[in-house]
Amino acid sequence: METGKLRAVKIISINVVFNLFFLLCLYLDFTQESQKREAFRQAVVNTLERRLFYIPSFKIYGGVTGLYDYGPPGCAVKANVLAFWRQVGTFRFSMLLSFLIAQTLDWDFVFSLMLICFVDGVSCHFVLEENMLEVDCPCVTPEIVLKASGHVDKFTDLMVKDEKTGTCYRADHLLKDFCKDKLEKEPNLSAEKAAELKHVLAVLDNLSMEELSAKIKEYGITAPDTKNTLSDPYPFNLMFQTSIGPSGSSPGYLRPETAQGIFVNFKDLYYYNGNKLPFAAAQIGQAFRNEISPRQGLLRVREFTLAEIEHFVDPEDKAHPKFSEVSKLELFMFPREDQVCGRPARKISIGEAVSQGIVNNETLGYFIGRVFLFLTQLGIDEGRLRFRQHLANEMAHYAADCWDAEIESSYGWIECVGIADRSAYDLHAHADKSGVPLVAYEKFPEPREVEVSPPSVPQFTKLVIAPVKKELGLAFKGNQKMVVEALEAMGEKEAMEMKTTLEAMGEAELYVCTLHKVVTIKNNIVSISKEKKKEHQRVFTPSVIEPSFGIGRIIYCLYEHSFYTRPSKDGDEQLNVFRFPPLVAPIKCAVFPLVQNQQYEEVAKQISKSLTAFGISYKIDITGASIGKRYARTDELGVPFAITVDSTSSVTVRERDSKQQIRVSVDEVASLVKSVTDGVSTWADLLRRYPIHSS
Amino acid sequence: METGKLRAVKIISINVVFNLFFLLCLYLDFTQESQKREAFRQAVVNTLERRLFYIPSFKIYGGVTGLYDYGPPGCAVKANVLAFWRQVGTFRFSMLLSFLIAQTLDWDFVFSLMLICFVDGVSCHFVLEENMLEVDCPCVTPEIVLKASGHVDKFTDLMVKDEKTGTCYRADHLLKDFCKDKLEKEPNLSAEKAAELKHVLAVLDNLSMEELSAKIKEYGITAPDTKNTLSDPYPFNLMFQTSIGPSGSSPGYLRPETAQGIFVNFKDLYYYNGNKLPFAAAQIGQAFRNEISPRQGLLRVREFTLAEIEHFVDPEDKAHPKFSEVSKLELFMFPREDQVCGRPARKISIGEAVSQGIVNNETLGYFIGRVFLFLTQLGIDEGRLRFRQHLANEMAHYAADCWDAEIESSYGWIECVGIADRSAYDLHAHADKSGVPLVAYEKFPEPREVEVSPPSVPQFTKLVIAPVKKELGLAFKGNQKMVVEALEAMGEKEAMEMKTTLEAMGEAELYVCTLHKVVTIKNNIVSISKEKKKEHQRVFTPSVIEPSFGIGRIIYCLYEHSFYTRPSKDGDEQLNVFRFPPLVAPIKCAVFPLVQNQQYEEVAKQISKSLTAFGISYKIDITGASIGKRYARTDELGVPFAITVDSTSSVTVRERDSKQQIRVSVDEVASLVKSVTDGVSTWADLLRRYPIHSS
Repeated sequence: METGKLRAVKIISINVVFNLFFLLCLYLDFTQESQKREAFRQAVVNTLERRLFYIPSFKIYGGVTGLYDYGPPGCAVKANVLAFWRQVGTFRFSMLLSFLIAQTLDWDFVFSLMLICFVDGVSCHFVLEENMLEVDCPCVTPEIVLKASGHVDKFTDLMVKDEKTGTCYRADHLLKDFCKDKLEKEPNLSAEKAAELKHVLAVLDNLSMEELSAKIKEYGITAPDTKNTLSDPYPFNLMFQTSIGPSGSSPGYLRPETAQGIFVNFKDLYYYNGNKLPFAAAQIGQAFRNEISPRQGLLRVREFTLAEIEHFVDPEDKAHPKFSEVSKLELFMFPREDQVCGRPARKISIGEAVSQGIVNNETLGYFIGRVFLFLTQLGIDEGRLRFRQHLANEMAHYAADCWDAEIESSYGWIECVGIADRSAYDLHAHADKSGVPLVAYEKFPEPREVEVSPPSVPQFTKLVIAPVKKELGLAFKGNQKMVVEALEAMGEKEAMEMKTTLEAMGEAELYVCTLHKVVTIKNNIVSISKEKKKEHQRVFTPSVIEPSFGIGRIIYCLYEHSFYTRPSKDGDEQLNVFRFPPLVAPIKCAVFPLVQNQQYEEVAKQISKSLTAFGISYKIDITGASIGKRYARTDELGVPFAITVDSTSSVTVRERDSKQQIRVSVDEVASLVKSVTDGVSTWADLLRRYPIHSS
Repeated sequence: METGKLRAVKIISINVVFNLFFLLCLYLDFTQESQKREAFRQAVVNTLERRLFYIPSFKIYGGVTGLYDYGPPGCAVKANVLAFWRQVGTFRFSMLLSFLIAQTLDWDFVFSLMLICFVDGVSCHFVLEENMLEVDCPCVTPEIVLKASGHVDKFTDLMVKDEKTGTCYRADHLLKDFCKDKLEKEPNLSAEKAAELKHVLAVLDNLSMEELSAKIKEYGITAPDTKNTLSDPYPFNLMFQTSIGPSGSSPGYLRPETAQGIFVNFKDLYYYNGNKLPFAAAQIGQAFRNEISPRQGLLRVREFTLAEIEHFVDPEDKAHPKFSEVSKLELFMFPREDQVCGRPARKISIGEAVSQGIVNNETLGYFIGRVFLFLTQLGIDEGRLRFRQHLANEMAHYAADCWDAEIESSYGWIECVGIADRSAYDLHAHADKSGVPLVAYEKFPEPREVEVSPPSVPQFTKLVIAPVKKELGLAFKGNQKMVVEALEAMGEKEAMEMKTTLEAMGEAELYVCTLHKVVTIKNNIVSISKEKKKEHQRVFTPSVIEPSFGIGRIIYCLYEHSFYTRPSKDGDEQLNVFRFPPLVAPIKCAVFPLVQNQQYEEVAKQISKSLTAFGISYKIDITGASIGKRYARTDELGVPFAITVDSTSSVTVRERDSKQQIRVSVDEVASLVKSVTDGVSTWADLLRRYPIHSS
């Protein structure tokens, strides 16, 4: 028995030790992973700040959390991303390109197709205008608009205050930090407790004010800086408030999204589009959120650029004529059911997702495909991009379906683009508040006979009560007039009931108040009908499908996905590189005279002039720094190509990532760089066509 | 005598009648002119609103004065103007083009030059990067920044309130309206009174709060709507105020200009530019002014797009290396003296203006030239564009010189671009407030010996007082130590006075407090000098030259300058046309099948595809409307070219303003439209090369 007990204790001990060891490993692994992520982020952010991709705003005054400036290279990247977005929004051509690239990665094929398009402009059936209507509305918005949209009442975060100092915190942040901290720093947490904390983290976004309050009290969470007690959570509206005009009587807000400016213009835009559906309007502009305590650097800021599309469709027909162009794209999707059941995201084609009912409709699917092409073309890693469906309780009650394009970064999965079917909610809300109907019309090719019109357009309903005078005279003689009046005074419901009774029984009773008695009406005395009316059109409120792009978040994730380090030639330091595609790169080309020498500098200037003439942005560096140092400086800005002048007749061209070099004649080099930055040839093409230079 | 008197009376009467008649004519002329202007503006504005160039913001809610949306064509025009501005800002190539166009109007020459640039990229010495550093800063700005810039204290307008209703008015507007009204509507005003009112109008912008108040009282001006009495004028700050973060303790404003974002980043940008001057930074973005009562439609709004350049230069060297490129440009200038003496603006070359000292320096002159080229290239009428110098009392005290590019519109002369030499004011202000030095360095090729350093850098000054011990011992024996201490304790002023006395008289007196007596110091006892220090660099605060473009105002003036009407074919109505150059036109080309017929529509689609492939925005109209009606619709949008499909092999191309048509083969038409919209050929070229089509 003793031995048995001992053995049992031993086994348990071993189990406990093993479990503890296992947990410790997991913990170390987790901690290591999180330290690695942190270190990686620091390297990216340091490079970005040092090279002025961005600058904390008003830095000389100590900065303002959540506000950032874009410095020169950041500004160029943003301009490139927005120009590409507009293109994608406006023209189908880039779409074709992206699609081909994604599908074939065969540049020769793309090139030949481009040639066909450009040269005889006939064979390319993808090339069609998207015809989006771009608008540009002010940031300052009067209260009534945001009251109608629901932002004044519901655009809030829950806040708690340090009861002594008055410092404000986001309630969910404190709870999140508490749970994460416990999980990370207390390895001997009971399994039960750990599971509870993990559950809290999972449902954090969906906790009500009362639930949050209860959890904060239960865990005894205090103010992180002072350990003072906290107030109960209460809602704080995230809109920056201001006042329009001098009187102080017209409250206004800085818009939290650009979409409302499009909705209130629906009527004019529909008219501009020739009263035809579907059509899309687009807007690029600043939006604002007065965050309680911004964290996560460039990911959660108080002012940001949004690019939003509002695609208006007939709610009865959400098919998309160009759906077939994207239906074969395969991408990581994370449907609602998979999230609930704890399954991971899985690769699935858009066509399947729509046909299986995972994605609500073709138009939504079409935009998911376009978002995928847009992001991957910019340089977002396809493997770290997923489309996550909103959970039922996460989605606004009016939304038909909603998907977020999430990109994995050192902060975790980040929502960068929202693609929502908002149904007719917004147009209804503004029509109700303003009294201006925001509707569309479908003209019928042939007028249609309808008996009962839609209840929303009561003017089309017409009840006809036709007494047959001759029969009436025979039946009621002198009382005829009073009976007729009583018949004609019937309401719709009463009349239709009589009609039913007459049809079933051949007669019905009617109380004639002027006679103070009930009379019997035979079915030959009156004919009751609803007049069949010819309708020429259907009137309805369109649905809205909204892809909404957080440009700053996309750019930050792009920085992380593009960043890597590699050892310097002598191996004594790590060099930073951004592997931006030429489309995104803030500067397309560098020009370096190998040594400080007038001849080489002349050649360098000559090449610079040709580059400018071709519209290629470049950076010339005539300092005496070593060529390795100069390469490193431009690699850090993500400049894809560098021309080094080491003779007066020919030069070398170096590709940033492979560091391979080719030798090209001075006269040819600018046009060659143009072809490869415009994407009409690839670096692989050039390697085949030009002699490789080994330094 | 009687007769004499009578004659005199008659003469006087005739005079009076004649004078009255003359005044009446003037009045009628004035009124007619102003009615004509009003009618013209109405025609422009109606067209702009009807075709959605712009839309009063939040129209379905009754709108907000001073806020406008750009609809689709307005958005396209704005995007075109900003892209051109960036080009001008970044590349010298467009500059060359503008210059050549302005000077020669010879497209063949321009074309050949472009070819040279593009093909061998060597012969074109204008082609050099401008190297501006673009930044993008937030609209929300903390108070401290705008306190430093002076906006919190001084960015005000004077306001009066209706004492009963509280309605607010701009004090100067009421005075202006009163004076204008009197002058226009009271023809029998005394000459003296008229002169007084005109004087008030002339000095209106320079009246102090007290003067304005006095005038309003003197004239008995009341609230225009209610005739109630008005409050005294008081300053109202024009910035939209808000609060950053949840605590309410961080006041912020919406920026009234984009410039401050650049100034606070000076240090980083200077470093980014390799610590070299001069350099320019640029920013395009929204700015805000909470106007008291916005008038003048699109010209005075509460939110607008600014495009600002801050060019940082050494205050001791404001020459500009590219000045010669603009020095021969002749434009209407309106110097201070001419305004004061009542002379009109006169044509003068920029070179002369600078050499005669009318314009303060070359850099200012260079930017005046570039602004001229930018505006005229967009389509602003050169004859209705002038550069007006600020009057002495109009200019900020720190400004070295300031010129406004003013464009004449139906509202009068409108300030659209300000070009100011703001000296070192802004950098000084932010350095003082933040404590961060915002300076530049000039490295000397050889270290320089300096005796007295600039007072702004006191650390370089070193006073050397060297007592000669031997002589001291002989002269003062036991008191030697006290005398040395007294000598060494002298301040700079005292020491330098002693030095002067010693040099002049050979001796000087010194009170030694520790001895309680005055002693005589001979000039062999002490040597007083300032150490000559070797300086390696000069430290200074750069000057700023700022061209600041009000994009919305430029675009509105462009609309007025581009608008005209012409009779329809049958003469029964006036048709509207915008004569936008292709650069600005929101849509470059229209495509019309002549009649509704499948063959023609096929050809039209084929042409559309080629246009898209070439990146030419177009509008296809396959409605059955008459061709004349379709031309009229696109003329009203300023579409420069229309392709009409009237056969399957060839089509006609119509130019908007001349209404001339040429016949071109289907295969060729897209590339031809591209060449003429890109400006590589002119319509005149095409008329020579293709058969003219007469309809």
